[in-house]
Amino acid sequence: MNALELRILKEGTVKPGNVLKVDTFLNHQIDPNLLEEMGREFCRRFEGTPITKVLTIESSGIAIAYPVARMLNVPLVFAKKTQSLNLDGDLYVAEVHSYTTKKDNRVIVSKKYLSESDRVLVIDDFLANGCALQALISIVESAGATVEGCGIAIEKGFQEGGWRIRNLGYRLESLAIVDDMDAVNGTITLREQ
Amino acid sequence: MNALELRILKEGTVKPGNVLKVDTFLNHQIDPNLLEEMGREFCRRFEGTPITKVLTIESSGIAIAYPVARMLNVPLVFAKKTQSLNLDGDLYVAEVHSYTTKKDNRVIVSKKYLSESDRVLVIDDFLANGCALQALISIVESAGATVEGCGIAIEKGFQEGGWRIRNLGYRLESLAIVDDMDAVNGTITLREQ
Repeated sequence: MNALELRILKEGTVKPGNVLKVDTFLNHQIDPNLLEEMGREFCRRFEGTPITKVLTIESSGIAIAYPVARMLNVPLVFAKKTQSLNLDGDLYVAEVHSYTTKKDNRVIVSKKYLSESDRVLVIDDFLANGCALQALISIVESAGATVEGCGIAIEKGFQEGGWRIRNLGYRLESLAIVDDMDAVNGTITLREQ
Repeated sequence: MNALELRILKEGTVKPGNVLKVDTFLNHQIDPNLLEEMGREFCRRFEGTPITKVLTIESSGIAIAYPVARMLNVPLVFAKKTQSLNLDGDLYVAEVHSYTTKKDNRVIVSKKYLSESDRVLVIDDFLANGCALQALISIVESAGATVEGCGIAIEKGFQEGGWRIRNLGYRLESLAIVDDMDAVNGTITLREQ
């Protein structure tokens, strides 16, 4: 069992509506020691893959993607969720529906930061229905760049996102896959990897 | 001149409305090598200060604060800008007006992640009028915790935020202070430190 899996079992809590809260270490308070471990594990899994850029999406993806980019010694680009007044010029755009905030978001990346020659590792915190990850993949492909793989911290194995992404032929590595969770008794069942 | 100052002079661009764009290395694309340098410089400036937690605000603050927290071996907490459905329980709340997005934001931190015993280093990317930083300081003080200092990547020295924060008695360290910038001819003048 890796460090993230152990931490989920120790500190993760389940809320109604298939919400897994990992706020104590991953997406409100962050434990840098854990994220360094996770970064090393992503690098181990994608060892030998030529990667020129790490792409993630604000906000929770940034801290997870940062150590990966640092260890690979490549730039990190984070997609933004709304069109900021500060982002001028040509943009890659994709639409994504957030089930957490119940809003449709526009995901944007400036064309300056992805090009045809880029080989991209896409990193995000959660994979559930796959909408956010598909938006990031679509942005990479709009740029004519190559998706070398996707690295996810926590995949909800009982939702269709993982199946959908793998079925499209992308390499997807999830550090933890939750096969079942129960808000009533608080149990979290992880898939053996 | 430190690494950030050199990079601002090399790649920063000035847009009308006092906008300094540093998207190539700081807040859209991120250069991890630069951010590690900046992290070391923050640690050097706050050496000997007892710090138990680093606090920042999503999104651009996260990548800047992460290496600082890792080097200090303390947790990183990032304040959120809207009330997410996933954030339950008691919250510290402060209001902040963003001149970039022209919106009023509510800045929140779960009460679980700041307590009276915390000695907090507040980190953010930009300091202009000081609204965002004052919101973070107000959250730390609502928790009864101590603000040990504020670390800013880029202070706009021609706006009142820096003066206001220092005048309130807080220790404020800015890695780069822009004294003047001109959208017409593109010049950026940094304060000698």
